Amino acid sequence: MRPESLRHDSLASRLMSAEEAAQLIRPGAVVGLSGFTRAGDAKAVPAALARRAEKEELRLTLATGASLGHGTDGALARSGALARRYPFQVDPEMRRAINAGEILYLDHHLSETADLIRAGHLRPPEVAIIEAVAVHGHGIVPTTSVGNSAAFLQHASSVIVELNAAQSPALEGVHDIATPAAWGARLPIGILEPADRIGLPYLPLDPRNIVAIVPTDLPDSPATVEAPDATTGAIAGHLLEFLAREVRQGRLTEALAPLQAGIGSVANAVLSGFAQGPFTQLTMFSEVLQDSTFDLMDAGRLLFASASSITLGQRQDVLRDFGRYRSRVVLRPQEITNAAEVLRRLGVLALNSALEVDIYGNVNSTHVNGSAMLNGIGGSGDFARNARLSVFVTPSTAKGGALSCIVPMASHVDHGAQDLDVLVTEQGLADLRGLAPRERAEVIIANCMHPAFRPLARDYFRAACRRGGHAPHLLEEALSWHLRAQRTGSMLPPAQRLAG
Amino acid sequence: MRPESLRHDSLASRLMSAEEAAQLIRPGAVVGLSGFTRAGDAKAVPAALARRAEKEELRLTLATGASLGHGTDGALARSGALARRYPFQVDPEMRRAINAGEILYLDHHLSETADLIRAGHLRPPEVAIIEAVAVHGHGIVPTTSVGNSAAFLQHASSVIVELNAAQSPALEGVHDIATPAAWGARLPIGILEPADRIGLPYLPLDPRNIVAIVPTDLPDSPATVEAPDATTGAIAGHLLEFLAREVRQGRLTEALAPLQAGIGSVANAVLSGFAQGPFTQLTMFSEVLQDSTFDLMDAGRLLFASASSITLGQRQDVLRDFGRYRSRVVLRPQEITNAAEVLRRLGVLALNSALEVDIYGNVNSTHVNGSAMLNGIGGSGDFARNARLSVFVTPSTAKGGALSCIVPMASHVDHGAQDLDVLVTEQGLADLRGLAPRERAEVIIANCMHPAFRPLARDYFRAACRRGGHAPHLLEEALSWHLRAQRTGSMLPPAQRLAG
Repeated sequence: MRPESLRHDSLASRLMSAEEAAQLIRPGAVVGLSGFTRAGDAKAVPAALARRAEKEELRLTLATGASLGHGTDGALARSGALARRYPFQVDPEMRRAINAGEILYLDHHLSETADLIRAGHLRPPEVAIIEAVAVHGHGIVPTTSVGNSAAFLQHASSVIVELNAAQSPALEGVHDIATPAAWGARLPIGILEPADRIGLPYLPLDPRNIVAIVPTDLPDSPATVEAPDATTGAIAGHLLEFLAREVRQGRLTEALAPLQAGIGSVANAVLSGFAQGPFTQLTMFSEVLQDSTFDLMDAGRLLFASASSITLGQRQDVLRDFGRYRSRVVLRPQEITNAAEVLRRLGVLALNSALEVDIYGNVNSTHVNGSAMLNGIGGSGDFARNARLSVFVTPSTAKGGALSCIVPMASHVDHGAQDLDVLVTEQGLADLRGLAPRERAEVIIANCMHPAFRPLARDYFRAACRRGGHAPHLLEEALSWHLRAQRTGSMLPPAQRLAG
Repeated sequence: MRPESLRHDSLASRLMSAEEAAQLIRPGAVVGLSGFTRAGDAKAVPAALARRAEKEELRLTLATGASLGHGTDGALARSGALARRYPFQVDPEMRRAINAGEILYLDHHLSETADLIRAGHLRPPEVAIIEAVAVHGHGIVPTTSVGNSAAFLQHASSVIVELNAAQSPALEGVHDIATPAAWGARLPIGILEPADRIGLPYLPLDPRNIVAIVPTDLPDSPATVEAPDATTGAIAGHLLEFLAREVRQGRLTEALAPLQAGIGSVANAVLSGFAQGPFTQLTMFSEVLQDSTFDLMDAGRLLFASASSITLGQRQDVLRDFGRYRSRVVLRPQEITNAAEVLRRLGVLALNSALEVDIYGNVNSTHVNGSAMLNGIGGSGDFARNARLSVFVTPSTAKGGALSCIVPMASHVDHGAQDLDVLVTEQGLADLRGLAPRERAEVIIANCMHPAFRPLARDYFRAACRRGGHAPHLLEEALSWHLRAQRTGSMLPPAQRLAG
């Protein structure tokens, strides 16, 4: 612990180990954790809770901003510490427990968790565990994410602070903490452009609520973004070409619109591509800032970036020398970064990944074969619904070409066709704006679907059109591609696999 | 035409018949019409366009606020006048043409049409046909709805005004017209409570854009709301009991929250029920004001109502003596009544109808058997997504009990499970707040499903849980209820029909 990080005298008495702090939490409690896209997550006390759960039934409800690093979700799932989890996770062991029905999972729009607690729809957290770079008499300075921490602190009667010496003290000042008032007294969110600040540079908190301060010294888990490959490169290429055309045709300026990009390799490839295109004076209004954000700043293309977290992979240097970037970055609560109000006002350009998309443009972001949770809807719905231009990207196939990511009917729908303006695969781009469902199907099949699946899709679509409807389907065959893959491992019929 | 309704001298020369005005529209044009939930719709010129289309190919694109009265959509569909239609309709002949693929239909969230035009995603209307009670040098005073008229007038180079002597002159002053600025210069929408006014009492317009003024004298088509029956009465009863409990438990006050109610008999039954409950000082922030709105004002329960239209059935007296209500009503553009920003700020209590709902709470509002368009998504997505409390209602069965409105998997999804907090049928109420999918299924089947279908649903759900998943499904059986009904007319297997 840096000596200057604990600035309120009375708190020194509350210094303790993670094990001791974990003992302060009663079985059955709702616990709210800092942490968003593996950044700024509480690390030591959750790990101690997992160890405690090996010996004792805890049945905790775990709430976070979004995903955690350090295998925390996995350790908690493995130890049986949790009864419930919300609003997002990306951990394989947590996923297994959720799909086995062992842990009950609430898959929220990330903008909504805080209001669900305020509305009384969820039992509020009684304990909050928040990672900080400093604690002072008015509150705590968070680290690389804000997430739901401000909302958790409004409700938690007991607060555990993990004071992490491995986080850059230069993060102080980068946060902008404001939360909506109760309904009836709620004012507009005063953000008119991405750089606007409307709140405090710390999480406000009565220090008397702090029951434990746990010194830690662990960096965030690095992002595990895969290197660009031919597929992600082609997707990025199609999209950048489309955006350049939008600029030429006057629908967007060279500054485009405030950018949101979901996490992952495609988003990183697209953002990296902005360094080459005709685009200048870009801004971001996103959930998470990744390596590419800082690459674009270094390239002089990106003026400012607002998000709820900083999640780095190769670019660990960013936080080692954060002073270079601090004036161009702000970190906000996720109910602000993802606020429908702000997204519609700014006219965000949203870029999100799909798991599967149907021929009419309904998007599945979450459920494999309609049943098994992958990660969660995250912020994709917040951004896709409220964006000025909503782009979804996906490779056209998965499992080495055996599965088409474009299917007749999505096995689960997170985003209706209204929330998808442009679909991009490595095959090409479908500009769906202003198109009716039957037109959408033609364009999606022709431009985005892998050629191996197109004849099958056209057969389905034509037969469905003969039967009729606005978005014609043959219900008896609508899910047949999924069923074939469950039986045979491939969505293609055996004959066509041989032919291919 | 009342002499005082045409207040700009130069416009007298533009008086003409509907037939003459209809001749000013070129084939292939995009035409924007006033009209929302059968209220304030342009009536004479669209009818003349339908007659013109009997002799001439027009292939128009027709944009409106929402549904039209007077069989206008049907006449236009029958005459072959239209190539495209958006964003909403409720007409049987239009529906037939849409489902036959003869008219291409864009089914928008009603908040979004205006921004889709501004973003350049849709070709803007070149002609607007707007019903008015008066025209003056600064603009036109609309009648019983606002809809998308303000946005259409921002784009249309030619404006046709239908000056309707049958509409109450007392409507002047009830409108509040404000539209969002272009992105980059867009400010917060300054509505902090339902009664707040932020704009002008007329649709601003350069009178030089007016190419025709057509005097008319036709009242709006009356609403065709069915009388309350045992089913709608039971649904209203369950919901009112739930809301009274929310008040007792302190999650809502007796003023509840600004109310939104979709159109229809259930909404009317629920609103009427507020006259008996413990509820006082209610407000509405909705799309449409129906008979029940004015009944509640008369009963002293409703203080103020904001919407985009007034659609009356039995209560035609309201407009005959509108002075009684004018200070307690405001009519706004639908991009304001349905604005995500305002809905989340106010914390609206949203009440919408579902066509079918699956056991996990995914809602189909639009597509019969996943294919055939019924009406459109309307504002249900705007309200359900952004509400403080989102309620969907549906009878548990349709077609005399042959179809269950609760199904294993919805054949189309307009609203993901996140957007449904409470589901109500005549069987009972499912409070889904804070529940994971497997818990939701138990409660929906037990509380909302018709008893005849429960054993079948439980068999499905249990078998799916054995296979696993977060929201477990058996894809090979997920749509089997729909398929059985397509084959046999009933979702119940023959044996169980005999038993029932």
